[in-house]
Amino acid sequence: MSIIEVIKKRRSIRKFLKKDVPKDLVLKVLDAARWAPSSKNSQPWEFIIIRDEETKGKLAKLARYGWFIADAPVVIAVVTDPQKSYAHLIDGACAVQNLMLAAWELGLGTCWIGTMDREEAKKILGVPESLHLLTVIPLGYPEKIPIPPSRKALEDIVYYENYGRKNL
Amino acid sequence: MSIIEVIKKRRSIRKFLKKDVPKDLVLKVLDAARWAPSSKNSQPWEFIIIRDEETKGKLAKLARYGWFIADAPVVIAVVTDPQKSYAHLIDGACAVQNLMLAAWELGLGTCWIGTMDREEAKKILGVPESLHLLTVIPLGYPEKIPIPPSRKALEDIVYYENYGRKNL
Repeated sequence: MSIIEVIKKRRSIRKFLKKDVPKDLVLKVLDAARWAPSSKNSQPWEFIIIRDEETKGKLAKLARYGWFIADAPVVIAVVTDPQKSYAHLIDGACAVQNLMLAAWELGLGTCWIGTMDREEAKKILGVPESLHLLTVIPLGYPEKIPIPPSRKALEDIVYYENYGRKNL
Repeated sequence: MSIIEVIKKRRSIRKFLKKDVPKDLVLKVLDAARWAPSSKNSQPWEFIIIRDEETKGKLAKLARYGWFIADAPVVIAVVTDPQKSYAHLIDGACAVQNLMLAAWELGLGTCWIGTMDREEAKKILGVPESLHLLTVIPLGYPEKIPIPPSRKALEDIVYYENYGRKNL
């Protein structure tokens, strides 16, 4: 699959098969994450691979729309360091986008979990106070591929030379 | 090229050939951007395609490490809307990562410009005050491919079950 195909076909996955994800695949996905660009090459990211059922269950309860975390074979917590990069949210997001695309190419689904009680989750995972828990990403084989959510048309979000200018 | 190859081979490009980028390629790259995931599918992003030499010159002066913007055949300004998504920086970063990867597959280089006088740049581009100028991305054919900057080893940034735990 070309990268543009992967980008277009990737879906957020919330239901996973009860099938293990081998460690080497998880590491491949994280290897892709670390090749993201970052402000001054600061690489302000770290990852925790979580398989423990109890931990996944606790995280699921802390994530507002993330009940399905508990059922994923693997959850990856992404930690960023505000001291290493003023743009740690952006750098981290680029790394996670790499992670999600690489996962899709390997037949694995993911979903960005945004809303959660981060401070509680950090305590569960032993993340130091000074670090930011960017997201926890469930990772597993999709039970099925959902239909794509709608996207705004390209012509509605692209301007030329100046904001709002729709043609040249 | 597989997506993992593209992810690993992509470099930030700061020197471009004096060769035009056809409009259909620019739109392909932006089409990839709009397929990023976003908080509640808010798609809080818009793009301005800039080719005007004067505008590029002005933007280059406002970007601390972005002198080379002026020499890129195309510059893409990425605008996000904080009202549409509380996570607009993250959503926008995922879209830009798609954009940069798709560009690389098409033989095009990019570079994330982070530090700039955003308010001045918004005035030049006619971006409403309520919106955020996430970045301006130069886009063009690379003059040469730089050697990869160093990356932290995977084993130094990956933990198991708990932060800091290096083995199972």
